[in-house]
Amino acid sequence: MTAAEKSSPEPSLELPHGFRFAGATGGIKVSGKPDVSLIVADRPCVAAAVTTTNQIFAAPVLLCRQRTPRTTCRAVITNSGNANACTGQEGVDDAIAMCGQVAAVVGCDPEDVLVMSTGVIGRRLPMDKVKRGIELAGQALGSEANHFFAAADAICTTDNFRKTASSSFDTSGTTYRVAAMCKGAGMIAPNMATMLGVIVTDFPMSADTAQASLRRIVERTFNRVSVDGHTSTNDTVVLLSSGNGEAATREDDVAVFVESATEACLKLAKLLVADGEGAVRFFEIAVEGAVSDADALTIAKCVAASPLVKTAIQGGDPNWGRIVSAGGYAGPPIQVGKTSLLIEGHCVFRDGRPLAFDATDMSGLMKQASEVKLLLTVGDGAGAATYWSSDLTEDYVRFNSLYTT
Amino acid sequence: MTAAEKSSPEPSLELPHGFRFAGATGGIKVSGKPDVSLIVADRPCVAAAVTTTNQIFAAPVLLCRQRTPRTTCRAVITNSGNANACTGQEGVDDAIAMCGQVAAVVGCDPEDVLVMSTGVIGRRLPMDKVKRGIELAGQALGSEANHFFAAADAICTTDNFRKTASSSFDTSGTTYRVAAMCKGAGMIAPNMATMLGVIVTDFPMSADTAQASLRRIVERTFNRVSVDGHTSTNDTVVLLSSGNGEAATREDDVAVFVESATEACLKLAKLLVADGEGAVRFFEIAVEGAVSDADALTIAKCVAASPLVKTAIQGGDPNWGRIVSAGGYAGPPIQVGKTSLLIEGHCVFRDGRPLAFDATDMSGLMKQASEVKLLLTVGDGAGAATYWSSDLTEDYVRFNSLYTT
Repeated sequence: MTAAEKSSPEPSLELPHGFRFAGATGGIKVSGKPDVSLIVADRPCVAAAVTTTNQIFAAPVLLCRQRTPRTTCRAVITNSGNANACTGQEGVDDAIAMCGQVAAVVGCDPEDVLVMSTGVIGRRLPMDKVKRGIELAGQALGSEANHFFAAADAICTTDNFRKTASSSFDTSGTTYRVAAMCKGAGMIAPNMATMLGVIVTDFPMSADTAQASLRRIVERTFNRVSVDGHTSTNDTVVLLSSGNGEAATREDDVAVFVESATEACLKLAKLLVADGEGAVRFFEIAVEGAVSDADALTIAKCVAASPLVKTAIQGGDPNWGRIVSAGGYAGPPIQVGKTSLLIEGHCVFRDGRPLAFDATDMSGLMKQASEVKLLLTVGDGAGAATYWSSDLTEDYVRFNSLYTT
Repeated sequence: MTAAEKSSPEPSLELPHGFRFAGATGGIKVSGKPDVSLIVADRPCVAAAVTTTNQIFAAPVLLCRQRTPRTTCRAVITNSGNANACTGQEGVDDAIAMCGQVAAVVGCDPEDVLVMSTGVIGRRLPMDKVKRGIELAGQALGSEANHFFAAADAICTTDNFRKTASSSFDTSGTTYRVAAMCKGAGMIAPNMATMLGVIVTDFPMSADTAQASLRRIVERTFNRVSVDGHTSTNDTVVLLSSGNGEAATREDDVAVFVESATEACLKLAKLLVADGEGAVRFFEIAVEGAVSDADALTIAKCVAASPLVKTAIQGGDPNWGRIVSAGGYAGPPIQVGKTSLLIEGHCVFRDGRPLAFDATDMSGLMKQASEVKLLLTVGDGAGAATYWSSDLTEDYVRFNSLYTT
């Protein structure tokens, strides 16, 4: 799969109303690529955020946590090329200064600005370049698709392609839109601090609803993919709703919004995997029959992260022993006598026993599949979960070994 | 490091009294290499075993669990080339038959024989070849070092070299000996079910002491190394003591034995890492300042397993961001403001802040080190632990991708 084939820009992207977007080049990246991304809400909007679980977290993560959920958010400023992580109090001061400059551009309280950073860990931000980027972005704001794409481009670091997705839905007689962007895939790149995402919508909701919805969306999308299992210091996903105050929301409407946003974010999550460093082949591991959904997720995640499973996918090898045994050491209880595995719909292991199959045929099916489907049943429980992952290739090792600080 | 350099055969190995050893070729392996290993105790001996935590475990693991701890053990029979895993009741019957044949050779109760298998998962044992191997091994038994080495050779699968170690100690006025062998390194090889080990000693102890001592020994040695983090279906370590009934043991004497056996097993554990598939460089990650030893171990294991850390070691890259952030997502609480990292004795990160260092010099130190030393301090707690791991190389991926079932 080439980078162009993996990418899925949406030419007919319909953006939610109430937002303007811009990307600009401040010079933070030595490559000269865009490195400052600005999203501005025309009026105070609802904002929620989920952030990394890593105890080593970056300065902008600290600010995002303090400032969400919120009903008066006006902007999200993001820089790429420098993660502003492990930078101490000076790093916090820099992040605060970024918000202050944006607040001056927008005409709002600095506390109503959220900030994200991604890039190299452990270096102070070059604030003169950041400042220049924010100035340029402030002048480039617009509400067209090309503005949205420019903002999405400017959050990228080692990404091979821009990652955007959108969805829309009708509920209570109104059409609402969701547009989302993200960058990165695991902590794939040398010292990069990686996954960032922004979801904008015009669906109206309270700050609490936004926060709860975002958790549900992320849990089923970005938290279900992995390239190398390394949780970065900067992971942040922000949800902005411009529909603030327009309507009270019914619980049913919220559910429809969550489904729609989940659809868009699942596309993005799969693009993250598709852009995984060195990744060539992709796989979906569905686990069924676990005691609980949480158990199923733990098992799916363990299979998805196993280097032996990932190299088997790379080689197009129907190596059921690696997959089944990864399920066996994941932790949650499984019923060995009721454990079965389907690869691309073909049962190779049933009720704890291997079945005869044509390995060459099966390998051919795996090599042809754009996404190899694995279905691991671990008992007769009701717990189920799905996880997406990429193969482990020599290119991944080469890329991450050759780099020198 | 070549295979020859990695290996450390011990020409002057002094074996504990009371055991005989043999290796033989039954023809289970298509390579024609030795595949049946037999250890016989001259008199009933004390036996303890620890086995895999994988819920998918092999038939011989089931028997080892049922038959230990034990005071009347007479033999351990091991075959390589076939793991007898995922083989259902027929597999259990085969393992029982192996013990029965050995019992006839030795002249003991079949229940006094322990059995281990390693090799391909999901295929029935070729019992005619296993039988032939046991016959030959029974005829080749001897108590010299070359017999011990032959037994150690016959448990190997994809190992590049034999793994043995020994130690001796004096306590209560008597000299005792420990000799140990193992094979494998993680679940490194295609469908192989991997780590097996046997420790023999003439130090007298009760079955309960043997079991408790073995757990302590394994916890600090074999459970502290990782190649790819994949827990196999067959992992088993057996401890045999020929000193049964000779003396009541004092608690102090047991502690001396545990230290001595730990010394031997730590050598073996490091040989496992050194023989890790595709491994070129090795590293030690010591964690200090955690809340508890268990927390420190969890953090050390997480750093040791990170593909980004492993590729940094491969590249000789002093990439402290990857190491520190792996400590941050391991789970146990850390004190970020008291987190520091030393690479090869040089501090690169102190109290949550990066220090300036010469990256080229540091990279040179890492590339010269036979084992790169990392010391990660995560707070001011008393918890500490050390873990050993290997780098992740293109050869690992190539080897594990190219194989086809």
